[in-house]
This record gives sequence, structure tokens and C-alpha cells, in this order.
Amino acid sequence: MLTLDKVYRAAHLLSKVARKTDMIGAGNLRSDCDLRLKAENLQLTGSFKLRGAFFKIASLPEETKEREIVACSAGNHSQGVAYAAAKLKRKAVIFMPGTAPISKVEATRKLGAEIHLIDGVYDDASNAAEEYCRRTQGIFVHPFDDEDVIAGQGTIALEILEQFPEVDTLFLPVGGGGLLAGTAFTMKQLKPECKVYGVQAEGAPGMHKAFINKSSVTLERVSTFADGIAVKHPGELTRQLCCQYADGILTVSDDEIASAILALMEKQKLVAEGAGAAGTGAILADKLPLAGRHVCAVISGGNIDVNILSRVINRGLLSSGRRAELKIAMLDKPGQLHEVSGIIARCGANVIQVRHDPGGEHADIIGCFLHVKMETRSAEQLEEIKSKLTRAGYKLV
Amino acid sequence: MLTLDKVYRAAHLLSKVARKTDMIGAGNLRSDCDLRLKAENLQLTGSFKLRGAFFKIASLPEETKEREIVACSAGNHSQGVAYAAAKLKRKAVIFMPGTAPISKVEATRKLGAEIHLIDGVYDDASNAAEEYCRRTQGIFVHPFDDEDVIAGQGTIALEILEQFPEVDTLFLPVGGGGLLAGTAFTMKQLKPECKVYGVQAEGAPGMHKAFINKSSVTLERVSTFADGIAVKHPGELTRQLCCQYADGILTVSDDEIASAILALMEKQKLVAEGAGAAGTGAILADKLPLAGRHVCAVISGGNIDVNILSRVINRGLLSSGRRAELKIAMLDKPGQLHEVSGIIARCGANVIQVRHDPGGEHADIIGCFLHVKMETRSAEQLEEIKSKLTRAGYKLV
Repeated sequence: MLTLDKVYRAAHLLSKVARKTDMIGAGNLRSDCDLRLKAENLQLTGSFKLRGAFFKIASLPEETKEREIVACSAGNHSQGVAYAAAKLKRKAVIFMPGTAPISKVEATRKLGAEIHLIDGVYDDASNAAEEYCRRTQGIFVHPFDDEDVIAGQGTIALEILEQFPEVDTLFLPVGGGGLLAGTAFTMKQLKPECKVYGVQAEGAPGMHKAFINKSSVTLERVSTFADGIAVKHPGELTRQLCCQYADGILTVSDDEIASAILALMEKQKLVAEGAGAAGTGAILADKLPLAGRHVCAVISGGNIDVNILSRVINRGLLSSGRRAELKIAMLDKPGQLHEVSGIIARCGANVIQVRHDPGGEHADIIGCFLHVKMETRSAEQLEEIKSKLTRAGYKLV
Repeated sequence: MLTLDKVYRAAHLLSKVARKTDMIGAGNLRSDCDLRLKAENLQLTGSFKLRGAFFKIASLPEETKEREIVACSAGNHSQGVAYAAAKLKRKAVIFMPGTAPISKVEATRKLGAEIHLIDGVYDDASNAAEEYCRRTQGIFVHPFDDEDVIAGQGTIALEILEQFPEVDTLFLPVGGGGLLAGTAFTMKQLKPECKVYGVQAEGAPGMHKAFINKSSVTLERVSTFADGIAVKHPGELTRQLCCQYADGILTVSDDEIASAILALMEKQKLVAEGAGAAGTGAILADKLPLAGRHVCAVISGGNIDVNILSRVINRGLLSSGRRAELKIAMLDKPGQLHEVSGIIARCGANVIQVRHDPGGEHADIIGCFLHVKMETRSAEQLEEIKSKLTRAGYKLV
């Protein structure tokens, strides 16, 4: 049974190997409440996962000490297990799907784990890991549905209470539910009046559904770029604990998560992965009334692929009017490009790409399109450019 | 005269208004030394600048309390002064060049300052600020060449010694020299055996030259994307202190800074601006032998324009083989695009942009070019794609 005692024991063991990550004020993000961020993206291995993994492995009985530690994950859990096993001088064997980003594979390998890359998706790697455990007597460390793992994640609640004793509202991302189960359990033992909310991606709402229906849920498919919480089947133990101790499970769209990632980068100088930004996403999207409250969002991790990050930034720039793409219909005659570029320059925008396109079957024979990609300073500046182009007789398509 | 006493007084006053920013291990970045980062990008206002500004304004004599606080800056200093003035209930009037990024203008305005946007560049805004001070008896707060400002920046050294007592090598960015002057002075009083190095952008090496020539320097122009250290004329007082207390001034290229920004994002989950990544850039580019040492780099700030950040990421992806652009010469006949895209897909890369180009006057009449932009996993994967395309008879241009 999960007990507060276990969580404290985990905290004691972790004090020597994990970072007590910073609690950072975020008045820049929202000023009508006292918002602070628990920066587990700055945790060793880039996510909170090593907490649970370390406590799990450290709690294994002495007589298992020759057996290998086995885990399956394309992401943070693999790094957490590899790190924890190395600290405890145990051999870790990690199964990862062949599609895992090379940066995560390399990061896990660098932590000393033996990596088995399995062709296919997560389920294939998971099957291979199970098969391997059967054959070798390896000890499988589940990413979330395990009492010791849950107790380890619960240590975050102890640090939050120490660093931000006024906290009365807590937001955490939920995939399998280990982080929420451990944290909600611990918080409710110590400060029952503190509200604890889980946040899921709209495209992977397993625990959200389980919470509402009060029963086990398996999703047929999940669809979100927040890979850390893209879980088809939340755990059973985690489900029971979440249903008992959490105050609610919210969902956020991928766009809300992306906006939160950009806001965290710009205003808080923190790199969060999709899962890590889910709580902040719910707060910025005003999913619950928070005025006057003492709110903590756990930034659970920062392991985001840079290609994805680059897309998130690009989309954020487009949607906030700081990057713009115009398609301008014009006559195919000398001087038009000169005039258009003059209007843009005088408005102070910076052209970064131009493409001239003779138009298709629906265009005028003597017409053409100019595609212009620009860096702009604001939505207002973009509107000014558009209206000046229109007044000069150009049609924006 | 600058005294340790002054630095301690500044630290006492700052303890109520500034954050004691985190000291974060960075074994991921370099494992042959004990490397840690002092995360002043997580400071309030996104940079260390409020330290000096606050101590300066707090130290003004009582009889000046009706006079306005005036500053000129397109960046971090303006936010530092605005924040400090607001905390001390003084009115701040900030002059900024009209070309300043709107995000910085808005951030400064939100801190309660009155903003004067001046047409032109920094020098124009600076002249306007001087003229304004003459007319209104305003008190001008210099961004670096001021003893109280320098003492305020020196408080970082006290925190570093407390958080990382083993430190024996320190890297700090240098523009005007306030941060280096204050930190080197303080460090050498308390731990003289700790080496203290300043790092400048190659395109703005004012203090570097002054340090070598032991005389005042004014650069005719500066050229670096690290706007926080793009200073033509380092201060006089800062120059004397830097020459006396620093152990050396290194320079790094813009590419080295950009690589450091990307490494800090990917491996440390921290957003650094160009100046903020300069020290890390010097460490990663191996400018000095550091094996076995206890090294601290001060990440001085994180206020980087997202458009710039997006370019930095893009360049980093290209140079590390995780994004690639190929120009493939092929015959303009059916099936070629299908074959090329098949080769790329089987290698596991993700095409994000395709452009078909009939070729110019030097191309074969029946030839054409295909421009393909892809997300790749590594330089090895890119090489595999290139060699498969070549073996299939395509010419890469």
C-alpha cells in the first residue's frame, strides 16, 4: 500500500542523487494569481522520471542484485532508469522502438545502459522487453503502474510544499498517471485543501475518461505531439489513486500546448517538452478560475526534439503576427516587385523569402503571384503592411 | 572606490528583490571537468542587469528622491532599471531606439516605465536621454560604467562562491564590462586563486583589445548577433577593473555562440541569449584547457528574440545533419520524383519541403533540379541518403 512513509523514504534516498529543482515565479505568464513553476525540466536526465525509477530500483530486495534492470520507453523513462541503475551500480537493459529520436537513444546509451533498438513502434519494443525478462530473469521497471515508482514521483509534492508553502492549486501533466498519483496522494495527506489537477492532451485523454467513467480505459489510438503523455492505457494502480486523490483531469489542445511551450521559452527562458507544458497550457488557456490563487505548475520535462521545437516556434511566430506569409496577386510587368518590396521595407518588416509564381489555370494570363515570407514585429505591423498593399492596388489572396 | 563592503551591502539589499538564481550542473555539455551554470537567464527581467540597476538607484541620496530615473538601452538594462525603479517607487523614463524589438519595449513598459522611442539607432536614443536629463534634472543610470552598478553585478560572485565553493575557473560575457568588473573584483578579494575570464564576440572585441593594449578602445563598428555585448566603447572604470582583476579576455565567433545556444537548449533546457551563451561557447570550443577543473559559466541572460532563436536552431539543425537541403539534378520525365522520394522515405527521413525547378541556361534542356528539404536524424543518415541517390544515378549539385 502507498504510504506517506514511503514517499519520505524516497525523498531521503533521492536527496543524494536527484536535484532539488528550482521553484520559479511566473508573474510574466499570468499576473492575476501567484503562479510558480516547479522546474523538473532542469532535473537530471531532463525530466522527473528518475525519481520513481531510482526509488524503485533502490527498493529491490538484496537477493535480486545480480539480476538486470529492464525497461521499455522511447523517452524520459529510459533515461531515468539508465541513470538510476548506473547510480546503484546495476546493469540496465533498455528496449526502445527503432523510431525513437537518435538524441534520446544516445542520451540513454551515454548513461551506461545497454540499448536494444526494436523495429516497429512502442508495443513491439515492449513485447521484446517482456520476452527478454522471461528469458533472463530481468526485473522490469514499469514507467508508471508501480507503487515504488509512484512513491518516487510523489517526492515532488514534498519539495513543492517546502518551496511554496502557500500553494493551493497544483497542475501536473498526466499520461500513465504516475506523477499525478504520487503527487496528489502526497499533497492530500499533508495539505488536503490544496486542489490537484491533472492535465492531458485532447488527443490522448485516457485518464480523463477513466476519471469521469470511474473505470479502466484503453484508447484505440492517441494523437498528440506531446509524446511524454501519449499513453493508450493508463495504469490501474495510478487510475485508482488519481480517482481518489485528484480534484479533476482537464484536457488541452496541441495548439494550447504549443503556445505554452513558446510562452515558457520567451517569458521564462525554460525549454519544456509537450507534456511539460501541458499544465501551463491549461493555466494560460484559462481552463479554471485562478484569480487570487497560489498556483504551481509542474514543468515535468524538457526533452523535446529540436525539429519539433522549431515547428512550435514557427507556428507561434505566425499566430502572433511576428512571422507572416503573404500571397500577393499582381500584374506580371516590370516594377511591381520593386513597389511591393518598398512598401514592406518602409513598414519596417524584414523579408526572408520570396517566390514568384506565374499562377495556374485560374489566374489571369498576364497576372502572377508573389509569395513573400517576412519577419514582422507585431500583428499591428502586419495589418499596416496589408492595408498599404491593398491601398496601392494589390490583391492579397 | 569599489569595496567588498559595497558588494555585500548590494547583496543585502538585493536579497529582498532579486532571485538567488540556480546553479545547475552541466556534465552533459562537457564531462572532463566539473562544469556548472549560474542561471541568470532565470533572474527576474530575464538577465542579471537588475542587480546593478537596483543597487545604484537604492544608493542615491535621499534628497534626489523627486528626480526621475533615466536610462537608455534597447535591451536588458532598460528592463533592469524599470524593475528596480518600480520596486523603489521611483519614476523611470527609458529611451529606446525605434528599432528595438517590440517584445523588449512591451516588457519594459509593463514594468511601469515611461518609454520614449527615438527614431534611429542606439546613439540617437542615448543623445535624446542626455538631453532629457539636462532639461529635467533626471538621474542617468549608466548601463555599466558606474561604481554602484558594478558593485551590484559583483553580487553574482558571492552567490557563486556559496553555491559552488570549489569553483576555480569562471567565465563571464563582456560587453561594457560591468559584470566582469564586479565579479572579477569580488572573486579576487575572496578567492584569489580562482581564474576569471571574460568572453567577447569576435565582432565586438572592445574590452579584449583594451585588455591587451592596456588602453582605452573605441570600435568603429560592431558586428554580432549577441546584441547584449555589442558595445563599441567599453567603460573606463570597468576597463581599469577588468585589466586589474580578470585573468584574460577571450573571443568567440557568432557560430560558436549559436552552437552554445543550441546546446544549452537541448542539453540543459535553458534559453540563453547570445551574450548569455558566450561563456559556454568558449568552454565548448575548448578555448582554454579545463580538464579536471571546477568551472562556472554565467548565463547572463535569456532575452533573445524568437525570430533569432528560430534562425539559430535552424542553422544548428543544418550543421549537425538533422535538417538537410539537397539539390538533385534529374531528367524531367515521369517517375523520377517517385523514385527519389522512395529512396528518402526508405532511409527514414521526413521531407518537409519540395521545389521543382526547370533549371537555368546552364542546365540540360531535358534536365531539371529538385530541391528537397528534409528532417534527418543524424549526419550518418544524411550520408546514407546521399549515397543511395548517387548510386541510383542522381547527381547532387
